[in-house]
Amino acid sequence: MSSDSAAIECLALEKKLGHKFKDPRILVQALSHRSVGSPNNERLEYLGDSVLGCVIAEFLYHQFPKLPEGDLTKMRAALVRQKTLSILARDLNFPAHLIMGSGEVKSGGYNRDSILSDAFEAVVGALYLDGGMSAVKNVLGKLYKDLLKTIKPAELEDSKTLLQETLQKQELSLPVYQVIAQSGKAHSLTFTVSCKVPGIESVFIATGNSRKKAEKSAAALAVEALNK
Amino acid sequence: MSSDSAAIECLALEKKLGHKFKDPRILVQALSHRSVGSPNNERLEYLGDSVLGCVIAEFLYHQFPKLPEGDLTKMRAALVRQKTLSILARDLNFPAHLIMGSGEVKSGGYNRDSILSDAFEAVVGALYLDGGMSAVKNVLGKLYKDLLKTIKPAELEDSKTLLQETLQKQELSLPVYQVIAQSGKAHSLTFTVSCKVPGIESVFIATGNSRKKAEKSAAALAVEALNK
Repeated sequence: MSSDSAAIECLALEKKLGHKFKDPRILVQALSHRSVGSPNNERLEYLGDSVLGCVIAEFLYHQFPKLPEGDLTKMRAALVRQKTLSILARDLNFPAHLIMGSGEVKSGGYNRDSILSDAFEAVVGALYLDGGMSAVKNVLGKLYKDLLKTIKPAELEDSKTLLQETLQKQELSLPVYQVIAQSGKAHSLTFTVSCKVPGIESVFIATGNSRKKAEKSAAALAVEALNK
Repeated sequence: MSSDSAAIECLALEKKLGHKFKDPRILVQALSHRSVGSPNNERLEYLGDSVLGCVIAEFLYHQFPKLPEGDLTKMRAALVRQKTLSILARDLNFPAHLIMGSGEVKSGGYNRDSILSDAFEAVVGALYLDGGMSAVKNVLGKLYKDLLKTIKPAELEDSKTLLQETLQKQELSLPVYQVIAQSGKAHSLTFTVSCKVPGIESVFIATGNSRKKAEKSAAALAVEALNK
C-alpha cells in the first residue's frame, strides 16, 4: 500500500482503536515496516514494547490485588507475547493496514506473526506519543477486555499441571518427583528435586527454597525439553 | 527499623525524591523487604520495573531522535540494570530507609545491590500509583539527569553512530558510504567501502566480509582522523 492510500486506511483503524490521532503521520509510521526504508516503525516498536508492558503490568496489579509478583509476571508475559499481539493485530485488520515493501508483500509478510506483533507494539508507541498514558490505557483497556476477563493465574503458573497436560497429549506416563538433596540451616533450606518421566531418559533437576518450588522448576525444565 | 520510625524516615526520602506522597504508606511498603512479612515491596517492584523501563525508554527515544532501536535498547538496559539502580538507591540513602527483618539486617542485606535495586524499582512503582506517570517522570528526570548527560551510544560499540555524533558536534554533515569494490566468490565476498564526509577532503577506505562491517571499519578510521 502507498503512503497516500494508507492515510485513508488509517481512518478506519483509528475508529477501531477508538483514538483520533492529533498527528496521523505517527500512526502511518507505526504501520510502516522497515522494508519501506525510513521512517519506519522500529523506533516506535521499541517505545511501544515498554509502554505495553507497563500498562498490562498495571492492569494486572489492580485486577489481582493479592497475587504475588511471580504470578503477575507470568500473566503479563502471556498477554504481551508475540502470539497474543498478532491475534489482537489481526482483529484490528492490521494485515490490510501494514505498509511494506513489495518483496515483503509478495512473501506474505503482512500476515506474519512477528511483523504483526511488532506493528502492534509500534501502534502502542504511537498512541503514547500522541495521547499519553491515558490514551494508551483507554485503547488497551478495550482491546484486552476479553483476555483480562478470562485470564487466570492458575492456568499459567503451575508448571506441574502444564507438564502433566503436555505428557497426556503425547500419551506419556505421569512424572515422578523426588527430593534428592536438602541443604542449609532450618530457616533457609534449599531443596533439590528430580523430575523423571517414565519412558524418557532425561532427568530434570532443579532447586528451590521449598519442595514445591523446586518441583515446579524441575517441571518447567521438563516442559521446555518436551516442547523442543 | 520499625514501621513507626520508618514513617519519620520517609519524610527525608520524600524530600530527596522531590515528591510528597498523598499516601505515605505506599512509600513505606515500597521500602519493606519481604523479610518483614506482608505487606512488602515485591508487588510494587513488579510494577515499578515496568514503569521504570517505560520512562527510560521514552527519555532515550526523545534524547536520541536518530538512533536505531537496537542502540536505544542497549542504552536502556545499561540504565536500568541492577548495578545502576543500586548506585541511585545509595545516593538516596536507601540503606538507612529500608525496612527489613533482623536476620537480613545482621547479614548486611540493607547494603546488597539486589535488595537496593529491588527497592528502587518498588519506589518507582509507589510513585506511579501515588502520582501517575508525570510524577515518575519528574523524579526520574532528576535522578537520571547526570547519567543521561553522559550516556553515549558510542560506548556501545557502533563506530558509525560514533562518527555521526562526532560530526554533529563539529557541525559537519553526515557521512556518505559507498561500496567501491566487491571481490571474491558469492560465499566469501570482500567489500571495499569508502566513507566521505561532505566538507572534508579525506576519503576513508576499508574492507570487510560484509558491507556493514566494511562501513564500520571505514567509520572508525574517520573518527580516528577527526579526533586528531
